[in-house]
Amino acid sequence: MMNLYEIARYLEQHDNYEILTHANPDGDTLGSAYALCLALQQIGKNARVITTNLPPVFGYLPYGVKAQDFEVETIVSTDVAADSLLGSNMGKYRGRINLCIDHHGSNTLTADNKFVDKYAAANCEIIYKLLLRLKITFTKQIANCLYTGISTDTGCFRFTNTTAETMRVAASLMDYGCDTAYINKVMFETKSKERIRLEHCVYDTIKYCANGRCAIIYTTLDMMKKLNVDDEELEGLASIPRQIEGVLMGITMREKPGGVFKISVRTNDNINASDFCSRFGGGGHPAAAGCSIEGSLEEVRSRLIKAAEECL
Amino acid sequence: MMNLYEIARYLEQHDNYEILTHANPDGDTLGSAYALCLALQQIGKNARVITTNLPPVFGYLPYGVKAQDFEVETIVSTDVAADSLLGSNMGKYRGRINLCIDHHGSNTLTADNKFVDKYAAANCEIIYKLLLRLKITFTKQIANCLYTGISTDTGCFRFTNTTAETMRVAASLMDYGCDTAYINKVMFETKSKERIRLEHCVYDTIKYCANGRCAIIYTTLDMMKKLNVDDEELEGLASIPRQIEGVLMGITMREKPGGVFKISVRTNDNINASDFCSRFGGGGHPAAAGCSIEGSLEEVRSRLIKAAEECL
Repeated sequence: MMNLYEIARYLEQHDNYEILTHANPDGDTLGSAYALCLALQQIGKNARVITTNLPPVFGYLPYGVKAQDFEVETIVSTDVAADSLLGSNMGKYRGRINLCIDHHGSNTLTADNKFVDKYAAANCEIIYKLLLRLKITFTKQIANCLYTGISTDTGCFRFTNTTAETMRVAASLMDYGCDTAYINKVMFETKSKERIRLEHCVYDTIKYCANGRCAIIYTTLDMMKKLNVDDEELEGLASIPRQIEGVLMGITMREKPGGVFKISVRTNDNINASDFCSRFGGGGHPAAAGCSIEGSLEEVRSRLIKAAEECL
Repeated sequence: MMNLYEIARYLEQHDNYEILTHANPDGDTLGSAYALCLALQQIGKNARVITTNLPPVFGYLPYGVKAQDFEVETIVSTDVAADSLLGSNMGKYRGRINLCIDHHGSNTLTADNKFVDKYAAANCEIIYKLLLRLKITFTKQIANCLYTGISTDTGCFRFTNTTAETMRVAASLMDYGCDTAYINKVMFETKSKERIRLEHCVYDTIKYCANGRCAIIYTTLDMMKKLNVDDEELEGLASIPRQIEGVLMGITMREKPGGVFKISVRTNDNINASDFCSRFGGGGHPAAAGCSIEGSLEEVRSRLIKAAEECL
């Protein structure tokens, strides 16, 4: 694995960059890619970002990026942990990535060169340190890109991946004038009317079991249709049941077409979500895991309740 | 006004401290008081904290504070902005406070000596800098107290009062081993079952006006009784309507005994909440203000809608 100085030298010695983001791009992959793109342009390189789409909420990120016409020579990926996570429009890049920069310990992406730091709360934390070594000027735009990735990947410094280092990087970005008020407002303090309606409906579905130590919520296709909300609005819903006082395991059931429910499990206090999901052929991390279960709402929920009561 | 070095010398030269918190104590006043108490005990002083009550959620703060038997000589207040904000059990201290440490620019507390820094996001940020000058050892307990105040007064680093300095202080507290995972979970990721039920009911009351630029929610005494929730659960409710996409003014109406509604107004984008509330004899800050209006639910809401439509 190359170290950050070597990555910086590599970037200085190459040119004509395409920077790839992962499918369903989030703040960290987009913030990483646009910050790196701005930095490369600043040191006189050609560079562009390749993404499947740019969700409207992140519309401020490309501000300041120059459109450049060039023949691609160097392909870099940011925050892409596996070949399968490249966007649907990026098939042609598989096996052709020259440099992978990522913070997922599980990274299996095929790439000529890699830098993976699993202790970085966000990939943008790595990009920040890389840009220090490129000796660029940290503009407000670059700071906004990096702050976006760091704040979204840490739930605005709430999640347990947040380290003292994360806080210090964010402090430096604030020194560079990043617009925390705008970014925090848009990312953490704004809910669409559809989302508000959806949460309201979901609160109606809360069911407790295992003496209140487990809470289950669900969404159905009918509900989504009636409320006129799409899958994008479901983001973060899975964190609702675990937030309830006394709940050690929060389960979210989302009905998918074809008589199947997608299950997200979030746990507290060393209850292993991955073990729980493996009972149903799924898996994931100790505190956040998932699986799919076929059946009607009542059947699937009964199976989950039974399993939860055995576990807790 | 004394500077922080002078405050540190003052604390070294005196002894037998009582440290006062404000009424309805929050994380910042309690965190400040307990951190200071632990520090004073560490440098060999007698000290205790005086508070009206310790909400159960803050139960971990006094951990490590020694019970000491002594005759009071020196009275210090932390985060108390005015005489009227002293707790109901602190009448005897009025006019007898020797040292006031606060971060409210509006501070009018009667005290012999004062240190007020309105640029500190939290009073705990001031206490942190003071303890540096006292050359104490930052224990995990002290770090937990200070992190509690800083995180709660900044909405976990989301509010616009958060500065680069705030982030750096938090980083240092993390270096000292403060338990951010526990504190963030308890403060920001936990809702009581009563609160969940209440939010669900309140979502039912959302009414939009001024073309969706204003949203109004309410709670009634009946609702509170039926849900068996008390006033404590209403904390933070006022932030709900302003979070809705497109809403510039979020209004929360809370029915109080005697046919009166307590109104909280939260605004975005330079809409002046204080000006709005002054129409009804109230006031406050530009983005957060309040007033009281007599009348039935429908009457009061109609008056608010009319005023909002004139304003927006």
